[in-house]
Amino acid sequence: MTSPTLQTAPDRAEEAPAVQLTRLVCSCPDRPGIVAAVSRFLADAGANIVSSSQYSTDPRDGTFFVRIEFTLALSARDQLAERFGLAVADRFEMRWRMWDAERRKRVAVLVSRHDHALMELLWRWRRGTLDADLVLVASNHADLRADVESFGLPFHHVPVRRGEKPAAEAALLELLADRADLVVLARYMQILSGDFLQRLGTPVINIHHSFLPAFEGAGPYERAKERGVKLVGATAHYVTEQLDAGPIIEQDVVRVSHRDDAPALTRLGADVERAVFARAVQWHCEDRVLVHGNTTVVF
Amino acid sequence: MTSPTLQTAPDRAEEAPAVQLTRLVCSCPDRPGIVAAVSRFLADAGANIVSSSQYSTDPRDGTFFVRIEFTLALSARDQLAERFGLAVADRFEMRWRMWDAERRKRVAVLVSRHDHALMELLWRWRRGTLDADLVLVASNHADLRADVESFGLPFHHVPVRRGEKPAAEAALLELLADRADLVVLARYMQILSGDFLQRLGTPVINIHHSFLPAFEGAGPYERAKERGVKLVGATAHYVTEQLDAGPIIEQDVVRVSHRDDAPALTRLGADVERAVFARAVQWHCEDRVLVHGNTTVVF
Amino acid sequence: MTSPTLQTAPDRAEEAPAVQLTRLVCSCPDRPGIVAAVSRFLADAGANIVSSSQYSTDPRDGTFFVRIEFTLALSARDQLAERFGLAVADRFEMRWRMWDAERRKRVAVLVSRHDHALMELLWRWRRGTLDADLVLVASNHADLRADVESFGLPFHHVPVRRGEKPAAEAALLELLADRADLVVLARYMQILSGDFLQRLGTPVINIHHSFLPAFEGAGPYERAKERGVKLVGATAHYVTEQLDAGPIIEQDVVRVSHRDDAPALTRLGADVERAVFARAVQWHCEDRVLVHGNTTVVF
Amino acid sequence: MTSPTLQTAPDRAEEAPAVQLTRLVCSCPDRPGIVAAVSRFLADAGANIVSSSQYSTDPRDGTFFVRIEFTLALSARDQLAERFGLAVADRFEMRWRMWDAERRKRVAVLVSRHDHALMELLWRWRRGTLDADLVLVASNHADLRADVESFGLPFHHVPVRRGEKPAAEAALLELLADRADLVVLARYMQILSGDFLQRLGTPVINIHHSFLPAFEGAGPYERAKERGVKLVGATAHYVTEQLDAGPIIEQDVVRVSHRDDAPALTRLGADVERAVFARAVQWHCEDRVLVHGNTTVVF
Repeated sequence: MTSPTLQTAPDRAEEAPAVQLTRLVCSCPDRPGIVAAVSRFLADAGANIVSSSQYSTDPRDGTFFVRIEFTLALSARDQLAERFGLAVADRFEMRWRMWDAERRKRVAVLVSRHDHALMELLWRWRRGTLDADLVLVASNHADLRADVESFGLPFHHVPVRRGEKPAAEAALLELLADRADLVVLARYMQILSGDFLQRLGTPVINIHHSFLPAFEGAGPYERAKERGVKLVGATAHYVTEQLDAGPIIEQDVVRVSHRDDAPALTRLGADVERAVFARAVQWHCEDRVLVHGNTTVVF
Repeated sequence: MTSPTLQTAPDRAEEAPAVQLTRLVCSCPDRPGIVAAVSRFLADAGANIVSSSQYSTDPRDGTFFVRIEFTLALSARDQLAERFGLAVADRFEMRWRMWDAERRKRVAVLVSRHDHALMELLWRWRRGTLDADLVLVASNHADLRADVESFGLPFHHVPVRRGEKPAAEAALLELLADRADLVVLARYMQILSGDFLQRLGTPVINIHHSFLPAFEGAGPYERAKERGVKLVGATAHYVTEQLDAGPIIEQDVVRVSHRDDAPALTRLGADVERAVFARAVQWHCEDRVLVHGNTTVVF
Repeated sequence: MTSPTLQTAPDRAEEAPAVQLTRLVCSCPDRPGIVAAVSRFLADAGANIVSSSQYSTDPRDGTFFVRIEFTLALSARDQLAERFGLAVADRFEMRWRMWDAERRKRVAVLVSRHDHALMELLWRWRRGTLDADLVLVASNHADLRADVESFGLPFHHVPVRRGEKPAAEAALLELLADRADLVVLARYMQILSGDFLQRLGTPVINIHHSFLPAFEGAGPYERAKERGVKLVGATAHYVTEQLDAGPIIEQDVVRVSHRDDAPALTRLGADVERAVFARAVQWHCEDRVLVHGNTTVVF
Repeated sequence: MTSPTLQTAPDRAEEAPAVQLTRLVCSCPDRPGIVAAVSRFLADAGANIVSSSQYSTDPRDGTFFVRIEFTLALSARDQLAERFGLAVADRFEMRWRMWDAERRKRVAVLVSRHDHALMELLWRWRRGTLDADLVLVASNHADLRADVESFGLPFHHVPVRRGEKPAAEAALLELLADRADLVVLARYMQILSGDFLQRLGTPVINIHHSFLPAFEGAGPYERAKERGVKLVGATAHYVTEQLDAGPIIEQDVVRVSHRDDAPALTRLGADVERAVFARAVQWHCEDRVLVHGNTTVVF
């Protein structure tokens, strides 16, 4: 799941400082010649392809997805994206992005009172095992202020009073504007409006405390207990206007038994939530996740 | 999950042939003194408790479940169940059964065209790793006759013609009457009526090809593909009148990716179905599964 | 794995404050009548058995293990252990202990520089999901002082200088004396002498960063990479004089691929180490783990 | 793990019968330009790349691996391999092969007395979910003759008498010569000599009944029981002269407990062996497995 390439990048930079690792991610209608065109463009530009993954839903009339990591001398980097757009992307009607791998994504966290998903990110970040920069935490409760600030991270209390959600969302938008490449909901117990999501303009990842589509909505562990399931799970997905229905990035489960009551399921599930959430955020930050309708391709 | 005790039973029988392994399974309203009463009864009867498991949903006003394996000289076995009923079970309002562990449960299999769940049972049975006796296979299709008969097992073709389901169910009832302690649906694609289940009088275990309650009903792998889930699963449950809603015995999942289309999910899922189905049947036959409302306790 | 009983204990205490939950754990040579004797003793004492688990390696000449949770009026609790010793334990040559479930075990942590296993415990402790009281952290390095102290927990720097290990162990012994019911090694990179273990007198749990017995000793992730394994794991075990060879409490693994280099295995493995370590400590603190020669019985 | 492309191949063939799916697998010292050269060659040849995966152990001086699936008009297929060798492979010092995806690999099975791994392959083959053609089964025991022949497959009894192993290996070589693209050991309990492996000339896959490198050699389940491990596993690997030390293709584990004695571990482990073995054989037959020293790259 992790790339040795990324790990060695700093060393390589030391020895040959003018080389840069870049990620190119594209999707487009599948047709012959895409890989050849992309790799020819990169070869002509002097790039060395370090890794690539691709997938087609159907080679005849499906959608094609590709993720390429390449290195390139800094001197040759000039206007590369623009040139790629003109020479390749337009021709194949691509949705695409090019991302400098050394530019870590800026991540803002929304949270309510449960601290486990938040703390998982904070500790991975501090330990240097999250390829992202946390930039701020905002919450509709003040409970976690001290914890967050002890990591040297700004904490913003943005209460959501009954009937005043638009004001709260406006405050959040102001906070987040141009500060984050990704917003993550670390058990943020407020529903975000479609209008908010549209204005925000960055992807939003949520961690849901069930194995979706089982137990959508509130109280999943209580309902899991009632239904007598033998596994409980967690789902990380991109947030869309439709609650708990956005494209799934990652899921996992843990075995439970009749001995586990709803609070026990909640504790056991919290561990799965942490793991699934951290993986989804990490993969997004490495540009491994491509949205395909209401599903994802994870390279 | 398996009991060394059961394994050594034949050896023990050889050396001390007059001893018998018996399982006692009880559930009742919880209140003080149940364990003491049961173990005192068994000690007084000369039994040696080999293993026991118990569980209470709530020690104050919940339901209590216990499963005990004990050995007893054959000579002391006489009327043990009757005496237990009078001395203990009636007093605590127990639902209970006592089962001679050396009497293997007789299992009848209903199947349609998919052979994987059926073959898993047949092979485990032939290999001696299923603690049950398969007694017959019935199917609404004739396709699997030769496979079944090659195991020396009777195969009955009981077609279900449109509008003639009652006749088919009557034929099945006649086949199964007094011949089986358990009926299992190894991907039997017909819905059994409440009337059939009631007349049958034995438990019925079904293997459903999804991680219930996700994707109840038909076409679960197709719907899993559409929803973009990252795990597919299988669920073994007791059959009730309400489709796909009976008490869950066992579940498991397997990781899938965007590369797996619906036929691939079907193939990967089939392996999970086989494993989950075999475990559920095995556990039932070892009297490890106690029904509790719409859930199960699995010791 | 978790007990609903423990969860409801505070509520029960509120309503009926004079009742206490107690755990009884015994092992002894198996022979008829043990369960009856224990449960009769408890019934006579007025106890209500809330849950029990038992296991015998061989009913004829093996070892018998039992763990019972019972409630008892405080007024009836007097000298219960003494009476049990005389009336039951001595007769069956039991190794046994009785533990008041509301008395949380005191846990001391030894750590070196890797913080992940330590932090997992600290956060579970603060979140209230670890049934134990952390009492101190000691380390042969000073690096983690601030982190530990931010949890309000004493941090002791006990350097281990070359050739001065006996002095360091003496300092540790003084620190730990009568302060801990359990010592845990959260990636403590020093080998403890048999003399230290004997003087310490409490159980010691270590988390080893491989799936033992594969890759005993140093550098397991590097060796896992060289061997090309497809899963890496972690093992929590009781510490004995023989390095990495003590009784295993819990193990788990995570899938890896050729793309993961040794640092990636280290990161992925760290998540498994955290989970396995936390489960082992939790189970020990709930008196679920009984040692049996060089293995464990985990109820 | 499975490719939708392969599934749709027959349909495509129907509509456009002159197109063929081909797999190209290469490894070589990594250096800039490999991907560009390969994809340019394919584009110039009129091929459409359907999927590709690549990996480099180190972009500066490591080894590069690539697997490409492409379609090509039959008319353009002529001498493609020869041309690729001259134009690309020689230049980059590649080890490579090109394989027509519609030509299923011919697999010969060696087995002793345990039937579970053999039966797993036979059933997957008959069910059409193994992308290979089983061609024969040979065994040093006659026990499984009837089972094998009931699948319409030739069974050869090649006894291995004490001191006459060279004769037995010679008989096997004669049987296998030019008849198989792959030989699999489905619990074949004889050690094959280095001389045999060299003369055979095809890859050999073995299923070992432990999580290697733990419990190499004989009696792994017995030793797992003694060591008290909490998981048992299985390992599929290519066979080399050095026993149990060849490149690992796939591994998996299953959770066990103190209640499982060695026979129970054997039964539980058999299920993992079956699954791991089937995956390894399937992946090999799809040309997904590339050997890298004593490890594998699995695309």
